[in-house]
Amino acid sequence: MTRAAVVGAAGYVGGELLRLLLGHPKVTVTRAVSASSAGRRVDSLHPNLRGHTDLVFSPLEDLEDCEVLLLATPHTVTMGLYPKLAPLAGQVIDLSADFRLRDPDAYARWYGVRHSAPELLAGFTAGLPETNRAALASADRVSVPGCMATAATLALAPLAEAGLVEPEVVVDARTGSSGAGRTAGEANLHPERSGAMRVFAPAGHRHQAEVAELTGLDVTMTATGVEAVRGVQVVCHARARGRLDERELRRVYRERYAGEPFVRLVAHRRGSHRYPDPKVLLGSNHCDVGFAVAGDRVVAMAALDNLVKGGAGNAVQCLNLRRGWPETDGLGFAGLHPV
Amino acid sequence: MTRAAVVGAAGYVGGELLRLLLGHPKVTVTRAVSASSAGRRVDSLHPNLRGHTDLVFSPLEDLEDCEVLLLATPHTVTMGLYPKLAPLAGQVIDLSADFRLRDPDAYARWYGVRHSAPELLAGFTAGLPETNRAALASADRVSVPGCMATAATLALAPLAEAGLVEPEVVVDARTGSSGAGRTAGEANLHPERSGAMRVFAPAGHRHQAEVAELTGLDVTMTATGVEAVRGVQVVCHARARGRLDERELRRVYRERYAGEPFVRLVAHRRGSHRYPDPKVLLGSNHCDVGFAVAGDRVVAMAALDNLVKGGAGNAVQCLNLRRGWPETDGLGFAGLHPV
Amino acid sequence: MTRAAVVGAAGYVGGELLRLLLGHPKVTVTRAVSASSAGRRVDSLHPNLRGHTDLVFSPLEDLEDCEVLLLATPHTVTMGLYPKLAPLAGQVIDLSADFRLRDPDAYARWYGVRHSAPELLAGFTAGLPETNRAALASADRVSVPGCMATAATLALAPLAEAGLVEPEVVVDARTGSSGAGRTAGEANLHPERSGAMRVFAPAGHRHQAEVAELTGLDVTMTATGVEAVRGVQVVCHARARGRLDERELRRVYRERYAGEPFVRLVAHRRGSHRYPDPKVLLGSNHCDVGFAVAGDRVVAMAALDNLVKGGAGNAVQCLNLRRGWPETDGLGFAGLHPV
Amino acid sequence: MTRAAVVGAAGYVGGELLRLLLGHPKVTVTRAVSASSAGRRVDSLHPNLRGHTDLVFSPLEDLEDCEVLLLATPHTVTMGLYPKLAPLAGQVIDLSADFRLRDPDAYARWYGVRHSAPELLAGFTAGLPETNRAALASADRVSVPGCMATAATLALAPLAEAGLVEPEVVVDARTGSSGAGRTAGEANLHPERSGAMRVFAPAGHRHQAEVAELTGLDVTMTATGVEAVRGVQVVCHARARGRLDERELRRVYRERYAGEPFVRLVAHRRGSHRYPDPKVLLGSNHCDVGFAVAGDRVVAMAALDNLVKGGAGNAVQCLNLRRGWPETDGLGFAGLHPV
Repeated sequence: MTRAAVVGAAGYVGGELLRLLLGHPKVTVTRAVSASSAGRRVDSLHPNLRGHTDLVFSPLEDLEDCEVLLLATPHTVTMGLYPKLAPLAGQVIDLSADFRLRDPDAYARWYGVRHSAPELLAGFTAGLPETNRAALASADRVSVPGCMATAATLALAPLAEAGLVEPEVVVDARTGSSGAGRTAGEANLHPERSGAMRVFAPAGHRHQAEVAELTGLDVTMTATGVEAVRGVQVVCHARARGRLDERELRRVYRERYAGEPFVRLVAHRRGSHRYPDPKVLLGSNHCDVGFAVAGDRVVAMAALDNLVKGGAGNAVQCLNLRRGWPETDGLGFAGLHPV
Repeated sequence: MTRAAVVGAAGYVGGELLRLLLGHPKVTVTRAVSASSAGRRVDSLHPNLRGHTDLVFSPLEDLEDCEVLLLATPHTVTMGLYPKLAPLAGQVIDLSADFRLRDPDAYARWYGVRHSAPELLAGFTAGLPETNRAALASADRVSVPGCMATAATLALAPLAEAGLVEPEVVVDARTGSSGAGRTAGEANLHPERSGAMRVFAPAGHRHQAEVAELTGLDVTMTATGVEAVRGVQVVCHARARGRLDERELRRVYRERYAGEPFVRLVAHRRGSHRYPDPKVLLGSNHCDVGFAVAGDRVVAMAALDNLVKGGAGNAVQCLNLRRGWPETDGLGFAGLHPV
Repeated sequence: MTRAAVVGAAGYVGGELLRLLLGHPKVTVTRAVSASSAGRRVDSLHPNLRGHTDLVFSPLEDLEDCEVLLLATPHTVTMGLYPKLAPLAGQVIDLSADFRLRDPDAYARWYGVRHSAPELLAGFTAGLPETNRAALASADRVSVPGCMATAATLALAPLAEAGLVEPEVVVDARTGSSGAGRTAGEANLHPERSGAMRVFAPAGHRHQAEVAELTGLDVTMTATGVEAVRGVQVVCHARARGRLDERELRRVYRERYAGEPFVRLVAHRRGSHRYPDPKVLLGSNHCDVGFAVAGDRVVAMAALDNLVKGGAGNAVQCLNLRRGWPETDGLGFAGLHPV
Repeated sequence: MTRAAVVGAAGYVGGELLRLLLGHPKVTVTRAVSASSAGRRVDSLHPNLRGHTDLVFSPLEDLEDCEVLLLATPHTVTMGLYPKLAPLAGQVIDLSADFRLRDPDAYARWYGVRHSAPELLAGFTAGLPETNRAALASADRVSVPGCMATAATLALAPLAEAGLVEPEVVVDARTGSSGAGRTAGEANLHPERSGAMRVFAPAGHRHQAEVAELTGLDVTMTATGVEAVRGVQVVCHARARGRLDERELRRVYRERYAGEPFVRLVAHRRGSHRYPDPKVLLGSNHCDVGFAVAGDRVVAMAALDNLVKGGAGNAVQCLNLRRGWPETDGLGFAGLHPV
């Protein structure tokens, strides 16, 4: 069994990593590190894991050598921790934003602080198997993209790679409340957040910088919090470069994602499930991708569970890839319907 | 007291009309017509009205002369009923889509049937006081715009009228489930619709034709059902024609809506309520409007309660206007927070 | 206009008091006091009030004489503030729990601290017009009952007063999240609270002490947080003392609440709205009451909006009563359906 | 691989059976029968199964021999189908109510029709491994209990078997909307059902007859629909026969469920997850059980996912048991948090 440790294990992404790794056939979890919750039982914060683990949160000092280290610590904190933690593990998978952007200026612009270790950025591989599989097969330093960036990239990559659309794309992203994490303040209290349609980034969200790096497109992202705990959906508005019809688009998307174990093409003529909807993806590592076309307007859509394919599940898929295991190991859950 | 009758009174828009008219200081409701529910108590279908009315639904045959007739009957049905009903009332306010579009070809394209009375279309005035107040002051035939069309028009009108943006605009609309009405089928069952992010019109929604007529812009609308019963939000993506900054935009919106009793400018620097959100508008006739700008991208936003400012409340406002009453009569409810 | 001030105006009950008083035809709000939010605009925390008020929160020191003082300050804090504030106003209406219980020992048991002013308890009148109208007509010190206590008392009073049931009653109460207030911690974050069925008081809730005082019954209350922001529902399980059938119960409830402007009897044979449900009561001051009987088991039910009839609306009704105004002044909102 | 077929596969319980059986290591699904959806792809109605199956719904006529037949057909329909279907399979597991009650008169009373095959009732074994494991090990005819009955039975069994409480017990059950199935009518439309607290059985629900048979207690059940798609919670109110304290109760529950793979004891001193809550159980086969005591009142609680431990999961557990496989085969999903 491969020994894995999770740092930042008390948060929502951390909890999801634990859920997936505890159910993984080839991994054993050696540590669940949480500075703030050290000494408490893991299942007191992640009650779904009752009966599935007796782990207790450890302080950072107790972390010892392991084979894989997964970092679910906050943005701007991770880059400070990393130099101390990296020597402990052969492979490090970071789920924070700190090593996602190649460009330290872009980091400073979007995260409001200067990057403390810009020389390390080039050493990280973007943790998105669908765009980066070959590199990930040997990557020991992986940075998992943001949840909305993953959705938008998977929606747009087929169009971008085939040069089918003009580079300027508007991405409308909608997200549940879990993306804000467990420590969010008053704005995330249930009475305030419940039933909201809260535009929190009307004309630019920091995940757009990642999409730009991953697709080469010039993306503007609008982000709205809607009523959901889990789930991200993106609707991307692009303009066709030449003539494009539905049949051609279907062929492009199909070929692009043929063989991908977690990308499903969802673009049907009828039915209430004809386009990607995160409702049917909770707990699953799928990203559903769809498209529509009208005149010269192309709409690309994607949906995923922000804590799974948008975070912890993607990390496990990268781990599988690196180890040479089947990519689906530990990620077989189909999702629920209705839920 | 002005005598008003509602046809299609068993539906959700019909129920909202009854709620507002029963609370109106200058109106008395003479009939609540419903073919399917004739003979049943009104409060058996609209339980909020218990203790507020003893009305029983009437069959259409019982409808007699009145001063105002409000039609909340379905699209494609209303145009058939109208010729028989119109002679009964001095003023007719139609809340269906049947008399919204000037162009019968556009109607056929979007509603799938040929219009049965195209010669009547020119006789209707669009029931949006914010763009059409002068005409509505003497209008005896009023067609209330669709809920998403109203939101998009109020978001975009200041930009369109001042020529500040390129004509091609993408409108991303999100809506609650009540817009689909009470007779919706399996797709609207609670287990299916709860928590959904359901793109039902990815690259063109019929309300866009109304927005085009009302603003002169070339609008493409995407519509998504999100978790809510009431509420519509639009996020409109436009490109500035020249230099535009936040201050200038604020001035334009402020001046455009100065004195409007139901349009509030909501575009703040911080806080979780800094942009329009239908959550704080349930039951209210307000439409909140906001904007953001980044480079040459302009984002215009609006939110409203689809059954009130997006339907029944707008109709009552038109009625008030035509009668020379204060526009706010019967529409003073502030909305709730939290809810 | 009667001058009213609200202390604790930044909280949810405080906001609801402001909404109702700003819309009241005979009241003017002179102060909205909040220690923590002094200097901020009232509508920054209560966004539904945008356009309805320009008030700014005041510090406590600025509070001056007024005719009515409404206290929406927290339990255990109010009893310390009261002696300083009481001289400022002819009438004081307290919405906290601090002056609800006659028995200071019960207070200490349920609220975990010794009461600091037990000598004042006898000076307060319970603010429930349906059980206490005569006394409230001249009461200058009013303590509004808890939301679940109000619902349970209105459900049970007809049975208790007529001696129809054994004294031991189990009350199962369900409540939305707004009852926990705006300052609640991690447990009330949206991801944690959304969709929960959280039993937080399985075998005794402090509101049961109030129900016992108000009805004379020996009540055990179980309380569960369910998915809702507003709304309380109680289902009370009692045992009939003698023979009881539906018809007799209907007569008892009808007679008991004949003429009550805000209590509606909801106990129908069929339909999805046949028993009290807070869903149709949001924003309304109604309390819906119903019952069912099977053998010797009697089930009494009630539903209300915890922030209105369970708090602020009840307070306004008490104010109306004391002033000799119609009890419904400022409380005419019918509620919404669907919502 | 054991060949299993599902009849009634288009419904919600049917879909959940397919999800579990398609993921089961020792089962292959040979048929998904649905009269109404024959010819459609299974994943068009169960979109979570996209990519997990290419099955198409079959008409009943196409059903051939198999090793296990699972019936998820409606109450009152199943008893008519059963005689024709039973010969096709060595083991039949029925998830409808038709073979749950031993007493045909109780069936007639609660389901409103006379039982068409009362002579078969005695041949069925109640499909609840926690109370019936020995019999199930060789049972070829299994009837899975109702979702609320399963929860109540698991909450109460330790008390009943140890004779710790008086026989008269009040069970307060709360349930999500999926229990009503996919064909429910207007009352289950999203606008009507969303946010409801709908008491649909105030003084007697038919599942109480099952609890009575399974526990020997004299149960009265009240059932309320609350806002959730999946999830059942019961709060059972009993009276202690003698002295009972928390420590003793804890010992009784612990011993009763020691070794049960799917029952977890959840009764903690603090924390928002201290009692059973279905929110953390979606998709999982766990039933969480808890208790509280105050004076002579004992409160027993349980929570489960109505489609899993309350239906399909329980059926698979019975299948595992009968085949001599580990009971957890195919049922390892831990549930999600937050969700």
